Amino acid sequence: MERINQAISSVKPLDERAMAEARKRQNDLTKPQGSLGQLESLSIQIAGIKGNPRPRIIHKVIFTLAGDHGVTQEGVSAYPSEVTPQMVYNFLRGGAGINVLARHIGARVVIADLGVASVLERHPDLKDKKVAMGTQNMCKGPAISREQAIRSVEAGIELVEEELTKGIDILGTGDMGIGNTTPSSAITACITGADAAFVTGKGTGLDDEGWGRKVKIIQKALEIHRPDPRDAVDVLSKVGGFEIGGIAGVILAGAKYQIPVVIDGFISGAAALIAASLSPAVKPYLIASHQSVEQGHRIILEHLGLKPLLNLDLRLGEGTGAALGIFLVEASLKVLNEMATFSEAGVSEKA
Amino acid sequence: MERINQAISSVKPLDERAMAEARKRQNDLTKPQGSLGQLESLSIQIAGIKGNPRPRIIHKVIFTLAGDHGVTQEGVSAYPSEVTPQMVYNFLRGGAGINVLARHIGARVVIADLGVASVLERHPDLKDKKVAMGTQNMCKGPAISREQAIRSVEAGIELVEEELTKGIDILGTGDMGIGNTTPSSAITACITGADAAFVTGKGTGLDDEGWGRKVKIIQKALEIHRPDPRDAVDVLSKVGGFEIGGIAGVILAGAKYQIPVVIDGFISGAAALIAASLSPAVKPYLIASHQSVEQGHRIILEHLGLKPLLNLDLRLGEGTGAALGIFLVEASLKVLNEMATFSEAGVSEKA
Repeated sequence: MERINQAISSVKPLDERAMAEARKRQNDLTKPQGSLGQLESLSIQIAGIKGNPRPRIIHKVIFTLAGDHGVTQEGVSAYPSEVTPQMVYNFLRGGAGINVLARHIGARVVIADLGVASVLERHPDLKDKKVAMGTQNMCKGPAISREQAIRSVEAGIELVEEELTKGIDILGTGDMGIGNTTPSSAITACITGADAAFVTGKGTGLDDEGWGRKVKIIQKALEIHRPDPRDAVDVLSKVGGFEIGGIAGVILAGAKYQIPVVIDGFISGAAALIAASLSPAVKPYLIASHQSVEQGHRIILEHLGLKPLLNLDLRLGEGTGAALGIFLVEASLKVLNEMATFSEAGVSEKA
Repeated sequence: MERINQAISSVKPLDERAMAEARKRQNDLTKPQGSLGQLESLSIQIAGIKGNPRPRIIHKVIFTLAGDHGVTQEGVSAYPSEVTPQMVYNFLRGGAGINVLARHIGARVVIADLGVASVLERHPDLKDKKVAMGTQNMCKGPAISREQAIRSVEAGIELVEEELTKGIDILGTGDMGIGNTTPSSAITACITGADAAFVTGKGTGLDDEGWGRKVKIIQKALEIHRPDPRDAVDVLSKVGGFEIGGIAGVILAGAKYQIPVVIDGFISGAAALIAASLSPAVKPYLIASHQSVEQGHRIILEHLGLKPLLNLDLRLGEGTGAALGIFLVEASLKVLNEMATFSEAGVSEKA
C-alpha cells in the first residue's frame, strides 16, 4: 500500500497561474471569446495539469490492461473467456481497434497482463503484471484478496513509471476482459449508491434475459460482501477486477506525474471511481473521452463531474474512445499555441 | 443555372452493394458487432458515397468561403464588417483556427472571396470568386439578385472542380462573414418553417437586447420578401448571402463527384438546406461534424436527418468543426481497412 499512499500524497492541485495565463491567451486569439467551446477549456485544464501556460504534446501513450473474471461462470457475457488472451495476441499483432486508432493519432500502446486466466506466451511488447489467473466468482466469495487488489493498483503505477523515460505527455486508459462490465457495474452501484439495475447494461451482446440475470448477480454479490463504499480497496477486492485495479493505478500515477489522463468508457470509468475514491485530488487530471452506450457510464461521469467529449455510441473499450479523445486534446493545445492573436493578425476586436 | 442543373442531375444514389460489403466486413472485424457505433456507420456511408467497399482518404480539402452582409447596418453583429477581410488575411497567413485544425488533420484549405465588401489584395492562395461587394440590407430590399444568387452557387461548384486535379477524397465546408448568422437564421426559418425566434441565436456575442433586435429584423425581412420555401434560389437571393450560396455549390459539387461532404456549423448548415432543397439527393452525401451552440443548428440537423459527430459547444465557423469531423471519418475508414477479422486473428466469435 506504500506505493499507492505515496502516489496519493504527491498529487498536487492544478496550477492556477498557468491556467490564468492560458485563459488570457485564449481570449486574445483571433476568434470570438469562447467560440471554440470545450477546445478552449481543455487547453486551459492541460495548462493547469502541466503547470505550463503553453503546454505541448509529443509522446502519447495508451495503456490497455487485460484481466479475466470468475463471474463469467454465471453466464454474464456473450463471449467465452478465451477471447481475452486471443485479443491480447491481436493487440500484440496490431490488428485490434485500439491499434488502428492509436496509429491514427500517433500514440504508443502499452499492453499489460494484469490477470488473464491463462499463461500468455512471452512477447517483447507484453508487460507481465499478472496478479493471478483471473478473479474468483464474486457470487461465491470476494473476487480478489485485499492484498491482490493493492497489488493490481501498484502494478498500474509501475506501468506508468516504466514508461516515463520514453516520455508521456498525455495518457489514455483502456481495458480488455471478457465479463468486465459486471464488476464495473458492481463498483459503480457501490460507490455512487445507484441501483444495480440502473447501472447495468448489456455488455457486448446480452439479450433481455441475460441482462436480468446479470443484474441479479450484481445485487447478490453486493449483498453477500457489503463492500464499504468509503474504502476503495475493499470495493475493488470484493467486486472488482485486476485490470480495473491496474487502470486505477495508471490514473493515480498520471495525476502524480502531472500527466493528463484521458479515460475511455465504462470500465475505465469504474477504475476512475476507484482512483478518485482513493484520492479525490485526481479528478482535475481526468478528461472523459466519450459517453459510452453502457448506461452506467453516464452515472459515473456525473459522479465525477465530467463532460464527455464524444458521443459516438462506442462500447468497445480497449482505449479506443481515449485515443479519439487524445486527438481532441491535441487539437485544443494546437489552437492555444498556434493561432494568431488579434494584435498579431491586425484584426479588430469586438465593438 | 445550367451548371447547377447539371450538378443536380448528376447526383447518384449511394452504392448499395459497396455499403453491403463494407457492412459485412465491419461485422467480421475483431470487436462485438456495432461496438464502434457511429465509426461503423460512417465507414459504410463513405463506402456507399465512393462506390468502393474499402475506401481510403488521402486528399482532404476544406473550403472556407467569405462574404459580407448589408444587414450589419442594422446592428446585428458585435463585430464590425472590417473583420471579414482582416480574417481573410489571417487565413492566408495561416494564423486562424481553421489553419491550425486543418494542419492538425493534414488538410488543404481553399480560401475564396465570394462577396467581401472590400477589394482584397491579390494572393496566390486566395480564390477570387467575388460576385459583388457584399449583399444588400435584407430589410430594405432583396439581399442579392436572383442572377447573383445563381452565380454564387455556380462559383462554389467551380471551386470544387478547380481542385479536382489536385485530388479531393473528402471535403469540409467553412464560412467567414460578419453578420452571417442573420441570413442563416432567415434561411432556416423559411425552409424549415420554424419561428424566427426559435432559430436565432446570439451570433458571436450579442446581448439580450441585440438578440431581440436581430429576431425582429429577420421577421421583417421574411415578411417583406416572402421568399418561396420551395424555390431555394428565391430564398438565397432574398435573405441569403454569397458565401452561403457558394457553400451550397460546394456541397452540390461534392455530391456530383461522389466526395463525402463534412458540413461545419450553423452557416454551413443553412447552405446545406439550400443545397438539399435544390436536390434532395445530396442528403446521403452529408456528414454533420458537430452540433453548434447556435440554436437554429439543431433544427437544421433534424430537418436534414443528420446526427452530429461532436458536441463541443463550438460556434466559430471557418470549417473548424468540419476539420475535426474529417478526422473522425478517417478514423472510421482506418477501422474498416486495417482491423483484423475474427478468422485472421484466431479470435472466437460470440457464443
